[in-house]
Amino acid sequence: MIPEIKLPTLLVDEQKCRQNIAQMVQKATDNQVIIRPHFKTHQAHGIGRWFREAGVEHITTSSFRMASYFAADGWKDITVAFPVNILEVERINTLARKVQLNICLENLSTLAFLEENLSTKVGVFVEINAGNNRSGLHLDHLPLIHQLVERITQSKKMQFLGFLGHAGQSYQARSHETILKAHQYSLQLMSQLRSKFQEKHPDLMISLGDTPTCSIADQFPGVDEIRPGNFVYYDVTQSYIGSCSTEQIAVAMACPVVAKYPERNEIIVYGGGVHFSKDRVQRRDGTTIFGLLADWTEKAWSVIPDSDTYVSGLSQEHGKIHTTQERIAATKIGDLLLIVPVHSCMTADLMKSVRTLDGQIIEMMRY
Amino acid sequence: MIPEIKLPTLLVDEQKCRQNIAQMVQKATDNQVIIRPHFKTHQAHGIGRWFREAGVEHITTSSFRMASYFAADGWKDITVAFPVNILEVERINTLARKVQLNICLENLSTLAFLEENLSTKVGVFVEINAGNNRSGLHLDHLPLIHQLVERITQSKKMQFLGFLGHAGQSYQARSHETILKAHQYSLQLMSQLRSKFQEKHPDLMISLGDTPTCSIADQFPGVDEIRPGNFVYYDVTQSYIGSCSTEQIAVAMACPVVAKYPERNEIIVYGGGVHFSKDRVQRRDGTTIFGLLADWTEKAWSVIPDSDTYVSGLSQEHGKIHTTQERIAATKIGDLLLIVPVHSCMTADLMKSVRTLDGQIIEMMRY
Repeated sequence: MIPEIKLPTLLVDEQKCRQNIAQMVQKATDNQVIIRPHFKTHQAHGIGRWFREAGVEHITTSSFRMASYFAADGWKDITVAFPVNILEVERINTLARKVQLNICLENLSTLAFLEENLSTKVGVFVEINAGNNRSGLHLDHLPLIHQLVERITQSKKMQFLGFLGHAGQSYQARSHETILKAHQYSLQLMSQLRSKFQEKHPDLMISLGDTPTCSIADQFPGVDEIRPGNFVYYDVTQSYIGSCSTEQIAVAMACPVVAKYPERNEIIVYGGGVHFSKDRVQRRDGTTIFGLLADWTEKAWSVIPDSDTYVSGLSQEHGKIHTTQERIAATKIGDLLLIVPVHSCMTADLMKSVRTLDGQIIEMMRY
Repeated sequence: MIPEIKLPTLLVDEQKCRQNIAQMVQKATDNQVIIRPHFKTHQAHGIGRWFREAGVEHITTSSFRMASYFAADGWKDITVAFPVNILEVERINTLARKVQLNICLENLSTLAFLEENLSTKVGVFVEINAGNNRSGLHLDHLPLIHQLVERITQSKKMQFLGFLGHAGQSYQARSHETILKAHQYSLQLMSQLRSKFQEKHPDLMISLGDTPTCSIADQFPGVDEIRPGNFVYYDVTQSYIGSCSTEQIAVAMACPVVAKYPERNEIIVYGGGVHFSKDRVQRRDGTTIFGLLADWTEKAWSVIPDSDTYVSGLSQEHGKIHTTQERIAATKIGDLLLIVPVHSCMTADLMKSVRTLDGQIIEMMRY
């Protein structure tokens, strides 16, 4: 318990967080790939600096707004891994004057608009659908990929950088085997693309990366840079996928206890959808859960093994904890329970700040 | 399309919104019940003023922080419909000096703490579980309810107001019949309580209310005040429940189109979980949807009948629209698509402001 905490508060265990960063940086070094972590998870200058201290120089963001926020803290090489929103061209031009800005293209309409409206040169990745069917082109679109690469190469306002993909289907995995299958799939796809374009574009880069594959795979043949994001905090979903152990999860929400219902095996905390988001995950036994609980330890916390204690529901401000009679009896109104989030990116985005265990408040981007 | 919009932007149709307010106020007047709307949906001084202009004087919030925010805009009678978080006693005391503050109690531990630590008198409702099994006491707890009422009545720092419940199970309804069943259930429960306590407490109030029952029920026998909240905007979930028609939904998000995949019948927009939340709802055919689409009209929008056009998925910033070949062909990169949210409370909470159709930005509470 931390006596100053009065409201739902997202805690970060700096030591775990720096360890998560260090491990991923080490893996990138071992594989001689650039690490360009996705900063959409933490969205905080303060956490970004922990990456900088670990030697990271290149970053990924999911919006131009987020890119501007990190540019303001001295980041000089930023990829916005999202299909360009052409309505933001003014911001793109402003940003590109300040930093090495890399964008993602996957259609000719955006390309034509940018050729007309860019005032400063930007780096361009062609976005590839690495199997998650969200955005990006597949090999079925090969003629379009050729057209895009050619026109980018000819453009004076663009520098062709290579191909960028995100094997987001790894988030559906529940075993290392499935994660590695997603990894193999995107490696093969990218290798096919490289072989088709390498002769004309010997310097083209392959950029891949999502937390599950980057956490589990040991080798990244043919990859030039990796872009995992969530690993900085990890979360319950990642532990279910198999990307991390629950000990690696570096954030937990402290939530005040407001009611107890032993007859339903439930505790109600102040901490709901406006704090955690309503993201959920299914356990192997079919139960839908919205978070796991953790016990306070002398210095931090320890996640309670996933059994009969979990967050069973969330409404706007209420969190429902399903737990044992023993835990209910040992819990008092006004206690702070610790909840490890299902999806740390969405939770951090809602909270807009994190608190280290020694009481430092790290502010996040606000908009 | 509104040319100034460059980013996902939550629009409010002021006319619809004021109509939703006026209808509910009229229903309360017809039934001679106080309307104490829940302000957690809009969280905005600006929208609160539309209620005031419609004659509303009493409000509900879901936190003491939100109560302070509205007290700052001149609201003088506020019920916080959430079990008291005792860690916030300082804020409670500050607030209670400024406004008529009403709180909810459902356990003796909180009661004892408040007896010791309150410095100013507050109004107290005993919270009743009206069937949604979230917080509040049931008739099984009758001895505890008696104890609470007695101790509140004896306390110099508390004024016993009555019983407050929330028939949140109505959110599971998909027909007027089921909504009315939830309504009947809570009416009966409250009437039993009233008959048990009325002799000693002839002035006790019964406070009920959730958007489905308040939208559908015509009569509120034995009820003294109603507390619906979501009806100010309504949303796709409420239209599925049967609380409203899609024409009554008063908010929609304008989202820039960033990619099109006709081969998958999909459009990708800039607009994801950080804008909408990840709340979802199931259609009668079993499809899980994350929003409906609307067409721009001359003055506002018109919801596209729920068929083969809907939001089929959300990730952090990407929204996936499933739609027809015709609509894909008619949509250009950079267009603004309108999405009607599944859950307007969570969406508004994330956006932190709404924009009227004539371009006024209404700021929301920030924390």
